[in-house]
Amino acid sequence: MTTGTEFTRDTQYIEDRIVADPEAVRASGGPVGGSIGNPYGGLSEGAQAWPVEAGRYRLVAARACPWAHRTIIVRRLLGLEDAISLGTPGPTHDVRSWTFDLDEGGVDPVLGTQRLQENYFKRFPDYPRGITVPAIVDVPTGAVVTNNYPQITLDFSTEWKAFHREGAPDLLPADKLEEMQPVIKRIFTEVNNGVYRCGFAGSQEAYQAAYDRLWAAMDWLEERLAGQRYLMGDTITEADVRLFTTLVRFDPVYHGHFKCNRNKLTEMPVLWAYARDLFQTPGFGDTVDFDQIKKHYYVVHEDINPTGIVPAGPDLSNWLEPHGRGALGGSPFGAGTAPGPVRPGEEVVPGSNPLYPA
Amino acid sequence: MTTGTEFTRDTQYIEDRIVADPEAVRASGGPVGGSIGNPYGGLSEGAQAWPVEAGRYRLVAARACPWAHRTIIVRRLLGLEDAISLGTPGPTHDVRSWTFDLDEGGVDPVLGTQRLQENYFKRFPDYPRGITVPAIVDVPTGAVVTNNYPQITLDFSTEWKAFHREGAPDLLPADKLEEMQPVIKRIFTEVNNGVYRCGFAGSQEAYQAAYDRLWAAMDWLEERLAGQRYLMGDTITEADVRLFTTLVRFDPVYHGHFKCNRNKLTEMPVLWAYARDLFQTPGFGDTVDFDQIKKHYYVVHEDINPTGIVPAGPDLSNWLEPHGRGALGGSPFGAGTAPGPVRPGEEVVPGSNPLYPA
Repeated sequence: MTTGTEFTRDTQYIEDRIVADPEAVRASGGPVGGSIGNPYGGLSEGAQAWPVEAGRYRLVAARACPWAHRTIIVRRLLGLEDAISLGTPGPTHDVRSWTFDLDEGGVDPVLGTQRLQENYFKRFPDYPRGITVPAIVDVPTGAVVTNNYPQITLDFSTEWKAFHREGAPDLLPADKLEEMQPVIKRIFTEVNNGVYRCGFAGSQEAYQAAYDRLWAAMDWLEERLAGQRYLMGDTITEADVRLFTTLVRFDPVYHGHFKCNRNKLTEMPVLWAYARDLFQTPGFGDTVDFDQIKKHYYVVHEDINPTGIVPAGPDLSNWLEPHGRGALGGSPFGAGTAPGPVRPGEEVVPGSNPLYPA
Repeated sequence: MTTGTEFTRDTQYIEDRIVADPEAVRASGGPVGGSIGNPYGGLSEGAQAWPVEAGRYRLVAARACPWAHRTIIVRRLLGLEDAISLGTPGPTHDVRSWTFDLDEGGVDPVLGTQRLQENYFKRFPDYPRGITVPAIVDVPTGAVVTNNYPQITLDFSTEWKAFHREGAPDLLPADKLEEMQPVIKRIFTEVNNGVYRCGFAGSQEAYQAAYDRLWAAMDWLEERLAGQRYLMGDTITEADVRLFTTLVRFDPVYHGHFKCNRNKLTEMPVLWAYARDLFQTPGFGDTVDFDQIKKHYYVVHEDINPTGIVPAGPDLSNWLEPHGRGALGGSPFGAGTAPGPVRPGEEVVPGSNPLYPA
């Protein structure tokens, strides 16, 4: 995970895509892979195009993991629950694999596997890299199709349109794509990954540099969101989803565990109100399991928390306090509507989130 | 340091005392050792009584350590700087000893030793227990007289009266002693030591129990101090000194490092204003070195912070914000006066405390 003294994220993934028109994507002369600026891009070298097909694929996404959390939120916002089922590994894993330890008998009820690693091996018997979530599995073969998280949510928005619910929001509005690209890039390098750069710094100097970068970006966001309700303006976009998954973990984990402690999120009035606004919006807070989030980081990272003890704090009831962001105007789902109740069987455990008291 | 799963503090000390009238103390039929309720007590079994004598003893007290910090504050409040000199070991130490690494050549200029252990060995060549601060050393022999921290500050107040400055406050007012005893006991077991019980808990269950105890006590203090300026009423007493040294370390260290994270001190309006009030009072904030405090815990406790990286946060400039506690009335030093400026050579390093900008 670390090279020299600065944390470097492994960016090698299985870059296959699931698309509405595989032939067209294979033939595309566009950029390699989709991107925020051009979500309808082509394929990386050696990658395959799989056909969109309702009921064929299973999204495996641990609630604990911020990269997987994005996919859970976007699937729910777009109403893809009927088209793509959801498997949720538990919060902790060993060095080799996420496991389905929360499921009855420790086996995913659809895939029939205990460890996500088995599904990676069904695709590549000698798969040498990390067993990561999110991963999309082809249910008939049990093989992982893709674990390329930056692409998965883009394809949910653009390639799975035929299966979106009525009133699904447009998370990638065409007139915002160009502006969104640098915003999302900065959020990724400075915030989503910035907290990890702090927590896994290999020296005091690398940590200090990472800390300074993180807080410069947090201050930028505090300013950007002071006068507008969402990152790109009046409606929720992919950018908000990507920022939310880090913000919701900030005080419970990153503040203490990763030493991102200039201040708590709750001490930044704008960002904290913005985060509460999203939390209280259907599709966001109702996907958050704070217990799993805390357990994941504090138990898995033995190198920075050798005792494995999970903090009891912070008090999280304040996520439900009024946010007052309505005064900025805007409409969370634009011309669309909010998603309905969480699908039965996909609710978070009571007590793991202030929306669902124990 | 840990027995079973709950942290237990070693309470064996060198219980000699330095007193105004050694004969009287030796003959005392009173309780063994002094106490808050009866600071003029006798001697523990086998302990000796040493005579108060200006210039004879050196207080060795690391600024990082909360137990030593008490003695630095009380010495300054009472104006004992001329009578008892101060040696300050650096913030980090190895498993065997605190060291004088901040002094020129790494040697205490009065004691001539590099490691405080040498002074313990001059007293007991086979001293088997921890080399702790505060310790009072007999300068002529270089031998430790006492490291019995709960007694040292009491004796500063009661036995060293002949050397108190003019206007020294009465930190142990006779009419408050009975009421103070249970307050100080609860602060010790639940707060001063309570944060360590959280940080060094050997199991999730022991941690949870420690966390619940700590916050019950913090809530009690928040309530107690809502209507009165100081713990015992209108003036600063020994009880306030003992609480302050934990509160000033709370957000920089205990909140993250010891997982005392239900909330920050800054999120408890009464306690936070109370702590700022003390911090801004001469004798308190001017003895605080936040850099040494953070470095001590995060570097020394390799078992809970194996990376040794010291967090850059939190932002501490808010310690100078107005506290508004004057509205409660009271007078910090009662019939006495505030201490004057910090003795030259004993100032904290600029930048280590918002009172002294870098």
